[in-house]
Amino acid sequence: MPFEAEQNPSAPAAEADTIAAVDLGSNSFHMIVASQDNGQLKVLDRLREPVRLAAGLTPEHRLSDEARARALACLERFGQRLREFPSGAVRAVGTNTLRRANRDGAFLEQARQALGHPIEIISGVEEARLIYQGVSHSVAAEPGRRLVLDIGGGSTELIVGEGFLPLYMESLYMGCVSMSQRFFPDGEITKEGMRRAVLAAQLEFRPVRARIRSLSWQSETGASGTIKAIREIVINEGWSEQGITYQALKRLRKALLAAGHVDRLNLKGLSDERRPVLAGGFAILFAAFEVLKMKRMNVSTGALREGLMLDLLGRMRHEDIREATIAAMAQRYQVDTEHAQRVEQLALAFFEQVRGCWGLNEQWQQWLHWAACLHEVGLIIAHSQYHKHGAYLIQHSDMAGFSLGEQARLASLVRGHRRKLNKELWKSQPPQMLYITLLLRLAVLLQRGRSDRLPADLALVCAPEGISLQFPSGWLEAHPLTRAGLEEEQNYLAAVGLRLDFT
Amino acid sequence: MPFEAEQNPSAPAAEADTIAAVDLGSNSFHMIVASQDNGQLKVLDRLREPVRLAAGLTPEHRLSDEARARALACLERFGQRLREFPSGAVRAVGTNTLRRANRDGAFLEQARQALGHPIEIISGVEEARLIYQGVSHSVAAEPGRRLVLDIGGGSTELIVGEGFLPLYMESLYMGCVSMSQRFFPDGEITKEGMRRAVLAAQLEFRPVRARIRSLSWQSETGASGTIKAIREIVINEGWSEQGITYQALKRLRKALLAAGHVDRLNLKGLSDERRPVLAGGFAILFAAFEVLKMKRMNVSTGALREGLMLDLLGRMRHEDIREATIAAMAQRYQVDTEHAQRVEQLALAFFEQVRGCWGLNEQWQQWLHWAACLHEVGLIIAHSQYHKHGAYLIQHSDMAGFSLGEQARLASLVRGHRRKLNKELWKSQPPQMLYITLLLRLAVLLQRGRSDRLPADLALVCAPEGISLQFPSGWLEAHPLTRAGLEEEQNYLAAVGLRLDFT
Repeated sequence: MPFEAEQNPSAPAAEADTIAAVDLGSNSFHMIVASQDNGQLKVLDRLREPVRLAAGLTPEHRLSDEARARALACLERFGQRLREFPSGAVRAVGTNTLRRANRDGAFLEQARQALGHPIEIISGVEEARLIYQGVSHSVAAEPGRRLVLDIGGGSTELIVGEGFLPLYMESLYMGCVSMSQRFFPDGEITKEGMRRAVLAAQLEFRPVRARIRSLSWQSETGASGTIKAIREIVINEGWSEQGITYQALKRLRKALLAAGHVDRLNLKGLSDERRPVLAGGFAILFAAFEVLKMKRMNVSTGALREGLMLDLLGRMRHEDIREATIAAMAQRYQVDTEHAQRVEQLALAFFEQVRGCWGLNEQWQQWLHWAACLHEVGLIIAHSQYHKHGAYLIQHSDMAGFSLGEQARLASLVRGHRRKLNKELWKSQPPQMLYITLLLRLAVLLQRGRSDRLPADLALVCAPEGISLQFPSGWLEAHPLTRAGLEEEQNYLAAVGLRLDFT
Repeated sequence: MPFEAEQNPSAPAAEADTIAAVDLGSNSFHMIVASQDNGQLKVLDRLREPVRLAAGLTPEHRLSDEARARALACLERFGQRLREFPSGAVRAVGTNTLRRANRDGAFLEQARQALGHPIEIISGVEEARLIYQGVSHSVAAEPGRRLVLDIGGGSTELIVGEGFLPLYMESLYMGCVSMSQRFFPDGEITKEGMRRAVLAAQLEFRPVRARIRSLSWQSETGASGTIKAIREIVINEGWSEQGITYQALKRLRKALLAAGHVDRLNLKGLSDERRPVLAGGFAILFAAFEVLKMKRMNVSTGALREGLMLDLLGRMRHEDIREATIAAMAQRYQVDTEHAQRVEQLALAFFEQVRGCWGLNEQWQQWLHWAACLHEVGLIIAHSQYHKHGAYLIQHSDMAGFSLGEQARLASLVRGHRRKLNKELWKSQPPQMLYITLLLRLAVLLQRGRSDRLPADLALVCAPEGISLQFPSGWLEAHPLTRAGLEEEQNYLAAVGLRLDFT
């Protein structure tokens, strides 16, 4: 399972008053720096570079050397500005193209070094959530529900929400770069190409419409470079007074077809950078207007990056969305929360006893807490192999606030909470992962009876290459089943080079 | 994914008045033949052979040549009796050892040829369900809840139920063969070996006790060769008047330890066949008495095989438990049943139009129906790749009435209901699988709008190497989105050598 390159996730810098968000998009890379004062953000700096990462993805899902070089050079420049920021004051995320190139761990590590901060890959649905957060905090509050559309380089996000709360989130597998490459090769804009591009986009939108029909919304807001660029054009050309209208889009289509090639486009407000991906982005937006029967769309300045910063701010202020996600998952998959709490309590008591000698910080405590909450989640599928089913659910569910690497980490912890530990797998992980897995395993094992009858003065002590569990004298002799369980555990742990003693 | 060896599952023989069940257990193979008259079963014939399959399983999960030869010779003998039975009048199942040797498709095919009927591998929980069915129909009806224990050669099943309804089912990974090999090697019975065997069994029972504590039960019933043999001994030795008591087990333990070796056991009622696996089976039973605090256990003559026959009878009488299982799964995973019905209706209408030319029988219709009911089950995890998540859920959930091969088949259908079809995977399947997958795909595609607006006179016609879909004239022109969807589908199907035309 893929992991972020960082070895030791550190706590958000609670004191940082300057924070930053970096977005490694499929079309452009963006950086935004802001000062925060009591939860209020003030943007200090914005940077954007048209890296066109999506155009450099090979059919084998690898990044071409050129794309790689462009990306690293851009991150080096961003890194100059961000390198001195404390760890935890910067969040950098990769979206569609990096999702697809996700086996390229070497690139992620180079990117981390260039930027000076770890890079998380997020899922399409998480991207949609962050976009909605950024948009809903950027536009004026309106009553009723809002539809938000964001057309990226490799994916398109669509959200229906109310106030700051997203109700429906979807990420579709098409973006302005991929659409332009597929239907307008070499910049050629034909009538047939446009017809097929709009149809292909409509096909993608259609199941979405069916699903959100019941929600109904009152207003539409767009975000992303594609939508901002189209707004610039239709306003500058005088086709619309404000926002984007369906009528204005029809005039733009006429202009695109009349030009016949992106190089011959002569539109007021169109930048040269946008030119090569305009037709593909237009086709997606036009299809959205048709399928969703929209008449007008307002444009938001804030989107993914602003959402990222707000999320970071929330974590600093202990309003971590991930807590709510864990609770919601436990409920959806019908976890016995009473037992989960019992296990968590014991695991955290163990954590306190060894945190010093094992160098475990608060962030690891949080991982242990989350893993304990969800360790039995797989029981909804079957008891047999439920640790593996739990790992599958955690790996594949939409988990708001978690990056894909974080989901993989949590899945590994749940996978490892009982039975065999795969030696090779654990070798590739930071040692703290194994330590907290061990704490979780011991807590699960000792709570196997699903009751609270354990001695109060149970001591866990670091020992050379492992750990020593000390019971009150006579207790283990009176509880041979626990002893047998611990003996079994000794064998499991020995396989990954950990020693367990108990007396 | 593993499949039963049969190419074309045929409908239960509705007219058969003699039916049979075969159980390829880890210790013995059993066959039972019964006549049925209006749902009443009368046993005509019973056969049992101590094949000791579990003893022939290598650490690499392969069957040794000797075990394989013993098994096939036994099945040849059973086959003499069953070969002429109509297909569908015999159910043959493999349990723990064959579950573990499940990569051995060649053996299953040889076994099918020897027996003359296909062999299904069932999960431990399905085994538990069938055992409970067999037991609850074999013993006198009693008020209150009943605990049922069945100690097999490779696994132990434990069920709490009321009347004919199982409420809790568990399959534990220990049996009389494996326990005897592990703790009483070469037949040696030491005090330390017995202590460790009982402890190991208690460890397995302990989480179960915690889980079923809230159910509470009024009576205990045992089944299986181990339990019947122990009952014979304690009655014949005069240690109990009826059933098995805790006191009698303590006397048996003393006798086992005093003998020190299975060859020196001198117990009334002990057969030579049971001798080598008695100590391991005893340890499991004794541990169960201790952990579950039992005083006395009655013994049932009926178990797995009787449950199998009742299940077969139910299918003949159109009371197929699998229907209820599908409905329960759709509910547990929150399927949109309205949409599932819409898809099913269309898929079954297509089925009627091509069943003749594609040679699809009623059994295939049932598969199509089940797949349509569950095709969106994976949405509970995430929309992205939900067809794969659905396949995972179906493959791994406990599904009462389904064999593991049947779960794999249903998972394949759900996996294949959208997006790419893996050419290699589908080559290994019977052609009907691909045909009904195609019907399901077309129904899902045409219902993508999640509404009923489709032309009433839609015709599906077999064509060379594929199929032709005929719309009323003008309809497709008026629905370019559907047309684009069908064009996309043409490409997916071409990859597995199927041709889709539409006009």
